[in-house]
Amino acid sequence: MEAIARAHTNIALIKYWGKRDSQLFLPMNSSLSITLDHFYTETKVQFSDQFEKDSLLLDGNQVTDNEIMKVTAFLNHVRNLAGTKTFAKVTSVNHVPTAAGFASSASGYAALAAAASKALQLDLTGTELSALARQGSGSASRSIFGGFVEWQKGEKTDGTDSFATQIIDEKAWDISVLSVVVEAGPKSVSSRDGMQRTVDTSPFYEGWLATLEEDLKRIKEAIKARDFTKLGEIAEANALKMHATMLGAKPPFFYWQSATLDVMQKVMELRQQGLEAYFTIDAGPNVKVLCEPMNEQMMKEKLAALPSVRDVIVCHPGPGIQYLSE
Amino acid sequence: MEAIARAHTNIALIKYWGKRDSQLFLPMNSSLSITLDHFYTETKVQFSDQFEKDSLLLDGNQVTDNEIMKVTAFLNHVRNLAGTKTFAKVTSVNHVPTAAGFASSASGYAALAAAASKALQLDLTGTELSALARQGSGSASRSIFGGFVEWQKGEKTDGTDSFATQIIDEKAWDISVLSVVVEAGPKSVSSRDGMQRTVDTSPFYEGWLATLEEDLKRIKEAIKARDFTKLGEIAEANALKMHATMLGAKPPFFYWQSATLDVMQKVMELRQQGLEAYFTIDAGPNVKVLCEPMNEQMMKEKLAALPSVRDVIVCHPGPGIQYLSE
Repeated sequence: MEAIARAHTNIALIKYWGKRDSQLFLPMNSSLSITLDHFYTETKVQFSDQFEKDSLLLDGNQVTDNEIMKVTAFLNHVRNLAGTKTFAKVTSVNHVPTAAGFASSASGYAALAAAASKALQLDLTGTELSALARQGSGSASRSIFGGFVEWQKGEKTDGTDSFATQIIDEKAWDISVLSVVVEAGPKSVSSRDGMQRTVDTSPFYEGWLATLEEDLKRIKEAIKARDFTKLGEIAEANALKMHATMLGAKPPFFYWQSATLDVMQKVMELRQQGLEAYFTIDAGPNVKVLCEPMNEQMMKEKLAALPSVRDVIVCHPGPGIQYLSE
Repeated sequence: MEAIARAHTNIALIKYWGKRDSQLFLPMNSSLSITLDHFYTETKVQFSDQFEKDSLLLDGNQVTDNEIMKVTAFLNHVRNLAGTKTFAKVTSVNHVPTAAGFASSASGYAALAAAASKALQLDLTGTELSALARQGSGSASRSIFGGFVEWQKGEKTDGTDSFATQIIDEKAWDISVLSVVVEAGPKSVSSRDGMQRTVDTSPFYEGWLATLEEDLKRIKEAIKARDFTKLGEIAEANALKMHATMLGAKPPFFYWQSATLDVMQKVMELRQQGLEAYFTIDAGPNVKVLCEPMNEQMMKEKLAALPSVRDVIVCHPGPGIQYLSE
């Protein structure tokens, strides 16, 4: 009745931005990501009749606020699948610096889904596990698999066809993803609230959705052909489009800060000089920079030299869910 | 056969972004601006049978490149109206620092239209003069009038109903417009090319157009009620929407630089602290900040203190076309 799982973060190249069902975490659009080797969450789940409620020890701290309610709601999905009502003790360690601007919820809920379902001996397939993880955090559905991963939005109202699949594994194509941590103030709008406000009020949201099938088709061609230039161009343009949608929301909001623009400008400048790289940005001020491995050291030095950059951490495609023993 | 006119720059609160006819400078949308007191162009036009071609002395330099062809094309409109083929000598002085990010073409073509038509004794009405100036540069149509000005896009294919009108004059409502000049690199896409690329390729352009009638209606209500908060909120949101449209273009482009974000963030931060101000940004890195006159000195100090700000020039609503004698 216990299991340990490790799940890695992922960075979306085609962004998930907006839900069609916020209860089931069903997205408005399909998305595509790279699972990363460097940042991960390890989670142990123990089910026992001796527990009187669920508990969560996160990075050594007992969690008592809203988050435990979210975890309990999520565990209820797993318990329903297993036909049990037993409470769980969850012990989780994030190796995801929150300052790096990666959503630890992606690796967190992927690891929780894997460990909890394993502990209850559910023996889920990868896609079933992905659909389960999705109900904790949308992007967690992608962290179940390694390498390049697509989360298909699905069509059904119950969400059973909304899960991720692997396109190619982490060994099939090596790309460098530099996580650039910048000097920045706190962000004023959570990504959850931001995407909802965008869906509800932005005149650009329809235009965003209208271009995504084409972006997905073309980036999958790029992955198949191992065409880095095409991949980078599509990813960068897709990120810019996502950020554009927020500028039209009522009231408008944005996640960029001056340091974000410093990194964007530097990447564009280096590219013009022949050092090929592309940026992508999630719902926060930090920037992820894509380049080919032969350029990663040079790229890291150039970016780290910017006064507004605090840290540059080099990542590569990483594995999907791993089960560990103590 | 000679006249001198002075025209002031203007800053759009509802932006002009995209043409439906690039020959006639017919816009896709109506726009609204404040004519500013601080920056202007003075232009003398002399027509004489002794001239063998048109000439342009701009800020003391004889202009020989593309710009003289544009001026000749523009003067041909004026000559057609007057039924003459006489060439002109144009002497123009810009009191518009190009670094301030104001389009000198707005004041330039407004002054040229006024001086040339006056020199040929055309006796045009304000709206006729505005429609004429529009054929040199779209935003020049607005610089014919002082104070708060609307450029109605018009419906006709010949452009005769596409001209500006004054909403209230420069004495009716005093607002401070701080022109914030930032440290920035050169801009990579001209506004003319940028708006065309956006119209042709951005999935957000339709969404932009769809919101403009509402923005215009509401900002005219705000002007009528002298409601600074409402005016500022609409203007800031409208500028953000315009900039959003570019992020969806193929290829994407943007005019913001890190210094632009510094100013935007500072304005938002001061606003949260109770110092009410709003920003607007044209097709370039500089920022214009709107505040009430009682706050302008404090605002100027706060913005000038930013390391990436080079200069802050305080403007107020200014007059329309003025005719001068030597």
